[in-house]
Amino acid sequence: MISREPKSRTASDIRPLSFELNFTRYAEGSVLIKAGHTHVLCTASVDEAVPPWMKDKGEGWVTAEYSMLPRATHTRSKRDREKVSGRTQEIQRLIGRALRACVDMKKLGARQIVIDCDVLQADGGTRTASITGGCVALAAAIRKLERDGKIEPGAFIQTVSAISIGMHEGKPLADLDYNEDSTCEVDMNFVMTEAGSFVELQGTAERKAFSLDDMLAMTQSAQAALKKITALQRETIAQL
Amino acid sequence: MISREPKSRTASDIRPLSFELNFTRYAEGSVLIKAGHTHVLCTASVDEAVPPWMKDKGEGWVTAEYSMLPRATHTRSKRDREKVSGRTQEIQRLIGRALRACVDMKKLGARQIVIDCDVLQADGGTRTASITGGCVALAAAIRKLERDGKIEPGAFIQTVSAISIGMHEGKPLADLDYNEDSTCEVDMNFVMTEAGSFVELQGTAERKAFSLDDMLAMTQSAQAALKKITALQRETIAQL
Amino acid sequence: MISREPKSRTASDIRPLSFELNFTRYAEGSVLIKAGHTHVLCTASVDEAVPPWMKDKGEGWVTAEYSMLPRATHTRSKRDREKVSGRTQEIQRLIGRALRACVDMKKLGARQIVIDCDVLQADGGTRTASITGGCVALAAAIRKLERDGKIEPGAFIQTVSAISIGMHEGKPLADLDYNEDSTCEVDMNFVMTEAGSFVELQGTAERKAFSLDDMLAMTQSAQAALKKITALQRETIAQL
Amino acid sequence: MISREPKSRTASDIRPLSFELNFTRYAEGSVLIKAGHTHVLCTASVDEAVPPWMKDKGEGWVTAEYSMLPRATHTRSKRDREKVSGRTQEIQRLIGRALRACVDMKKLGARQIVIDCDVLQADGGTRTASITGGCVALAAAIRKLERDGKIEPGAFIQTVSAISIGMHEGKPLADLDYNEDSTCEVDMNFVMTEAGSFVELQGTAERKAFSLDDMLAMTQSAQAALKKITALQRETIAQL
Amino acid sequence: MISREPKSRTASDIRPLSFELNFTRYAEGSVLIKAGHTHVLCTASVDEAVPPWMKDKGEGWVTAEYSMLPRATHTRSKRDREKVSGRTQEIQRLIGRALRACVDMKKLGARQIVIDCDVLQADGGTRTASITGGCVALAAAIRKLERDGKIEPGAFIQTVSAISIGMHEGKPLADLDYNEDSTCEVDMNFVMTEAGSFVELQGTAERKAFSLDDMLAMTQSAQAALKKITALQRETIAQL
Amino acid sequence: MISREPKSRTASDIRPLSFELNFTRYAEGSVLIKAGHTHVLCTASVDEAVPPWMKDKGEGWVTAEYSMLPRATHTRSKRDREKVSGRTQEIQRLIGRALRACVDMKKLGARQIVIDCDVLQADGGTRTASITGGCVALAAAIRKLERDGKIEPGAFIQTVSAISIGMHEGKPLADLDYNEDSTCEVDMNFVMTEAGSFVELQGTAERKAFSLDDMLAMTQSAQAALKKITALQRETIAQL
Repeated sequence: MISREPKSRTASDIRPLSFELNFTRYAEGSVLIKAGHTHVLCTASVDEAVPPWMKDKGEGWVTAEYSMLPRATHTRSKRDREKVSGRTQEIQRLIGRALRACVDMKKLGARQIVIDCDVLQADGGTRTASITGGCVALAAAIRKLERDGKIEPGAFIQTVSAISIGMHEGKPLADLDYNEDSTCEVDMNFVMTEAGSFVELQGTAERKAFSLDDMLAMTQSAQAALKKITALQRETIAQL
Repeated sequence: MISREPKSRTASDIRPLSFELNFTRYAEGSVLIKAGHTHVLCTASVDEAVPPWMKDKGEGWVTAEYSMLPRATHTRSKRDREKVSGRTQEIQRLIGRALRACVDMKKLGARQIVIDCDVLQADGGTRTASITGGCVALAAAIRKLERDGKIEPGAFIQTVSAISIGMHEGKPLADLDYNEDSTCEVDMNFVMTEAGSFVELQGTAERKAFSLDDMLAMTQSAQAALKKITALQRETIAQL
Repeated sequence: MISREPKSRTASDIRPLSFELNFTRYAEGSVLIKAGHTHVLCTASVDEAVPPWMKDKGEGWVTAEYSMLPRATHTRSKRDREKVSGRTQEIQRLIGRALRACVDMKKLGARQIVIDCDVLQADGGTRTASITGGCVALAAAIRKLERDGKIEPGAFIQTVSAISIGMHEGKPLADLDYNEDSTCEVDMNFVMTEAGSFVELQGTAERKAFSLDDMLAMTQSAQAALKKITALQRETIAQL
Repeated sequence: MISREPKSRTASDIRPLSFELNFTRYAEGSVLIKAGHTHVLCTASVDEAVPPWMKDKGEGWVTAEYSMLPRATHTRSKRDREKVSGRTQEIQRLIGRALRACVDMKKLGARQIVIDCDVLQADGGTRTASITGGCVALAAAIRKLERDGKIEPGAFIQTVSAISIGMHEGKPLADLDYNEDSTCEVDMNFVMTEAGSFVELQGTAERKAFSLDDMLAMTQSAQAALKKITALQRETIAQL
Repeated sequence: MISREPKSRTASDIRPLSFELNFTRYAEGSVLIKAGHTHVLCTASVDEAVPPWMKDKGEGWVTAEYSMLPRATHTRSKRDREKVSGRTQEIQRLIGRALRACVDMKKLGARQIVIDCDVLQADGGTRTASITGGCVALAAAIRKLERDGKIEPGAFIQTVSAISIGMHEGKPLADLDYNEDSTCEVDMNFVMTEAGSFVELQGTAERKAFSLDDMLAMTQSAQAALKKITALQRETIAQL
Repeated sequence: MISREPKSRTASDIRPLSFELNFTRYAEGSVLIKAGHTHVLCTASVDEAVPPWMKDKGEGWVTAEYSMLPRATHTRSKRDREKVSGRTQEIQRLIGRALRACVDMKKLGARQIVIDCDVLQADGGTRTASITGGCVALAAAIRKLERDGKIEPGAFIQTVSAISIGMHEGKPLADLDYNEDSTCEVDMNFVMTEAGSFVELQGTAERKAFSLDDMLAMTQSAQAALKKITALQRETIAQL
C-alpha cells in the first residue's frame, strides 16, 4: 500500500493505493483496487469465443465494461437500465483500448477476455483506477490460462497504469479526488506502459485553455506517479 | 457469525452468516451481508422526496432495486442495460414488499428510502440475503435519520428476515446454496417478522407438486432458521 | 357454470365460472374463461420449434404471455409497448411455471406451446383465471396434436387450477374480486394439481403479517374452491 | 346483421356484419364488431384531460390505438412490446384521423376520447373494421357524456365508415378477406362520411399500377358498400 | 430546372425543380433533389445480400429509409434516436412501396438496394420529393450494376414520380409548400408511373370531407404536374 | 479555400478546406465545411430556454449532436435509431466541450445553442471538421442574436479549431484522411483556441505506445496546421 500526506503533498503524490487479489471467487481474475476512497472491483472473465467480427482471425480480444453502483457516490444516481449513458460508454471504451495494450492477441489465441469494472465507492479517478486494477485482473486471468495449459507464456506483454493529473493554482496535482477534481482548471488522464510510453492521453480544459508548459508539467507529474503505481502492480502480479 | 457443518447438517442449519456494517461510506445505511459464498452489498439511500403518486399523503415509502454483477457467478452474464429481466424485476419487487413491513410509514414522514442490493458474489439465496441484509441497511438509515433529528424514534418497527428452504430426498434443507438448490424438487422462500409472522411466502414445485405435509415441514425449518438469523440481525443493529 | 350468492357466502364460494371453447378459430387451443366479471381469452399456439436453449434435448416446452387490454379496467391504462412492466413479467412467469406442471415434456416432443392470456375485462383474479383457463387451452392444443397424429396420447398429465384467497375480518374468502381484494389484509394465490398437490404458493401480507393459523385456514379454503374449479375444467376438457 | 353469399357476389357485397354493444362493461363505449371472421373489440375511453399540446384551447381530441392479439391470425405473431411496428403505427394514425371527422371538437370540450381497437380475430380488413366499429364506440361514449350532463347534444356530427376494395381479374370486389386480399392486384381503402364524402383514401398497387378507370370502379363499389354499412351503424347507434 | 411564378400560377404549376447527380461520392447512386426550398439527399446503396425472409427466392428487393435533419425546418426537432416516430415510419414505408414499382426484381437478382432519403431542408412535400429523387438515385445504382457487368439491362422498368395536390378555395393547387399545405382543406399525394398509372394514392381530409369532383380535379392536376416532373427525371437519367 | 499537394506534403499540410455559409436557410447559423472529401453540415439552433439543470443560473449553454448519414462512407452503416452508439456519444460530447470554450456563457444569457453536425460524406477527420465547422456556425448564430438585439456584443470570445495528427513512419502527418488514418500507428486530436492554447487533447496508440518526443512532434504539427485553419475561420466569420 502506498499512501500520501494530503497537506505536504508533492506534484506526484498519490492516494493510498492497494490491490486485494481474489476479492471474488468465480472470475478468472478478480481484484479490488482501492485508491483513496475510490474502490473498484475489477474482474476478468475468459470467454472461449471471440466477437463475430473477429471470427477466423485466430486472434484474441480484450474488452471492458464499466459501471458505478447507484450509491457509490454522495447522492444516489439512477442505474443505466434502459440505455447506457454517454459518460459510461466513453469510459468503458477508454478502458478497453488501454488494456488491449497489455496483450499479444496472437498469443492469447481465439478467445476474449472481458474486464468488468464495477465501482463500489467513488471519490474521483474511477476510470484511471479501473484501468490500473483491470490490468491486474487481466494479468491474473492470463496467468490462469497459462497454468491451465491453454496458452503458452508470453501473452501478457506489459502492464499499463493510469492516473489523472490536474492543474491547481498553476501547479500539477496527481491522483485527484472528487473535491480536488472539481477545483482544478484542467484535467488530464494519462495511460502509460511500464516502459513509460503513452497509450492514451486525454486532456480537457475544464475552465480555461492550457498552455504547452502546463501540459509538459502534467506529463512529468504523471510519469513520476505512474512509476510508483507500476511498482505496486508488478509486486501484486508477482503473487499470482 | 453463524456457521454450519455441511455434512452433519440439520433441517434448520444455515450457512456461515455475517454482516459488515459501513462497507461503503456515503450511503445512509450500508452493509455487506455474507451468507456462505453469497455476498450482497446492501445500501439504504434516503431521498427527501416521495414518488409522485404519494404526493400530499404525508407518509414515507421504501423501495428496492436488485442487480447482480456480471461475474458474480460461475459464468459471466450480460448486464441488464437495455431492459430489466423478468427475474430481476420479480426479485426487487419482492424485496421492496418485504422491507416495507419493517417501517411505520407515517413516522418515517414524506421521504423515500431506496434499498440497493448488489450481488457481488452469488452462490444461491441472493434474494433472501438481500432481504436480510437490506433490513439491516434500512435500520441503519433510519437510525441516522433519528440521530440527525429528522424523525422521532419508532419508525423502524420490526426486523424482517428471509430464507429459502428446499425439499431434498423427502426432508427439508435450509439456506440452499447453488448446488443444493438445483437438486431440490421444491423451493420455498419465507420472509418473516422477528415475531414469527409471515410477510411473504413463495413456494415453487421445481420438479413435482408438493403436499401439505411437505409445506408444513418446510415452514418449521424456516421458523427455526430465521430465529437464528433474526438474533444476528438484532445483534448487528444494536451496534448502530 | 358455477355461481355464488355474494351475501350468504362461505369461505370456499367462488364467482360464477364458465369456459367458452373455441372463442377464436385459428389457435390450436382457444377458450374464453369468465370468473365473475373477469374475462380472459386464453389461446394455445403450437410452435414446431423449441427455444434455442432447448435445442437437441428432444423435449418440449410450455411458456406463457400475459397482457391486459388498456380498457379492461375501470380506468384506462397505458399499453406495455416500450417495456414490459414488472407486474406483467411476474404474472406471465407464474403462469408459465404453473402450466408446465400439466405436461410430460418428453411426450410433447421437441415443440413449444405458447399460452397467451389476454384479459378482456378485469375484476380481480386475472392471474388465477389465466392459469385455470390456460390449462384448458393447453389441453385443447395437446388434444389437437394427438388427433393430428403428431404425438401419442399421454402428454397432458394433469390439470392445474388456481385461486386467490384473502383474509377478511379474520376469516378466509375465496376468489376475490377487485373490491374484496383491496379490503383484504392478506392475499394468497394457490396453484394446485387436480390431485390436490401444490404447484405454486404465493402469500403476501398486504397490511399486516399473518400467522400460521391464517395460512392453514386459507389453504383449506383454497383446496375446497379448487375442487369445484377442477371439476368444471375436467367437464370442459371432456368436450374436446 | 348483413351477410353475403360468397359465390354469387356482386362488386359491393360485404361480409356478414354485426355490432355487439357493451361487449365489455367498464369503458364509456364498447362494441365488438364482426365482419366475417374479423372480430375487433373497440372501446372508447373518456379522459377528462387533453394532451399537453392542446392545453388552453378549450377543444377536445380523439385518438386511437390499434393492436392485434398474438394469435388473432393463422400463425402466432410477436407482441409489439419493445417498439411499435411501422404497420401498427400507420394503422392507428389512420383510425385516429378518420374518427376525428365524427366529432365537433369545440362541443366535445377540453377532454380526450381514446379509441382502442384490439383485434381478437383477423381475416383481412382489420383497419377498416376498426374504423367502422370505433365510430360506434365513439358515438356510445359521447352519448354517455350527454346523458351524464357533461356536454350538450351535438358533439357527434356524423358517422364514418370504411371498406377495402380490391381489383380481382379486372373487376372490383368489396370487403376483402385475407385470401382475397392476397390475390388482388390493387387494394384501396375508403373512409367516407354517411353523407358520402371522402375522409381518407388510400390506394396501393400491390402488383401492377392501376388506371383511372380502375380507381373509379373501386370508388363506385365502395360507395355502394358503405351505404349498407352506414345503415347498420345508424341502426346500432339508435339503440344507445 | 423547372420553375413557377407563384402569383400567376395554374393548377399544375410546380416549384423550381432540379436534380444534382453525384452529390456525394461513395453511394452507388446519389442525387440531391431540390423542389423549391425542399432539399433531399437521396442515395442508393447496393447490398449484395437480401433480407432473411427473401432468402432462396433469387429475386431482389428495394427498401427505403427516410429522415429529416433536426434543423431542416423553422424550429429544431429532436432526432429519432430511441424510437422511430409513426410519421417517419409511414413515410419510409410509402417510399419503399413506390420505388419497388420501378424495378423488375427477377432481373435485379438476389441483392437489395436501400434508398436513403435525408431531408437537408424542408419546406413541404418532403415525402414526394423523396420518391421523385429516390427514383433517380435508384436508376443510377442500377445503371452502375449494369456497367459493372453484374446484371443485364432491363432491371429498371419505369420511372415513378410523386406530387402533393391540395384544394385551396375550391380549386386544386400542385406541389404545396409548407405554408400552402397548412391552409389547404384537403391534401392528396399521388405516385404515378411515367405511363400515367397509379402506384399509390393517399388523400386526407384535413378539415372537411371532400367530394368525388374534388378528387377528380386533384387527379387531373397531378397528372399534368407529374408529366413535367417525369420529363426532367428522364432527362437526368439520360446523363447517367 | 486551402489545398495541399498530397505528394510533396509537409507535416502541417492540410487538405483543401472550405466553408459554405448559409448552406441551409432556416438555422440561425448554417455552414457546410469541406475538408478534402469529408463534408459536414453544421447548423446552430438557438433555443430560448436552457436545460432544466441550468434553470435560474442566468447563464447560457452550448451543446452538440453528431450523426453520420448512413451512406456517408464506402459501405452503408445502420442508423442510430434505437440507441446511440458509444462512438457517436463520445464524439458529440467532445464537440460540445470544445465549442463551449468559444462562448462567454454569462453574456450569452439564459438560452441554449445546439450545434448539429451531420456528416454528409466521410473521409476521415469528421470529428475535427465538426468542431472547426461548428465554431463558424456558432459564431453565425451569435452574430444573429447580436443583430436581432437579443444580446450585447462579446458573447463569442474566441474561435476554436481542431485537427487530427498521425505518426506515419516516424514523422507526423496532419489532417489524416481515411486511408492515412488506418495506416498510422498513433492518432492524436488537438482542439486549440486561436491564441494557441489547448482546449482538448486526445492521443491514442492505435498499434504501439508512443514516446514523449512523438507527442511533441505531433503537437508542433498541430499548431502549424491549426494556424492556417484559424485564419480561414476568421476570414469566413468576417463575412457574417
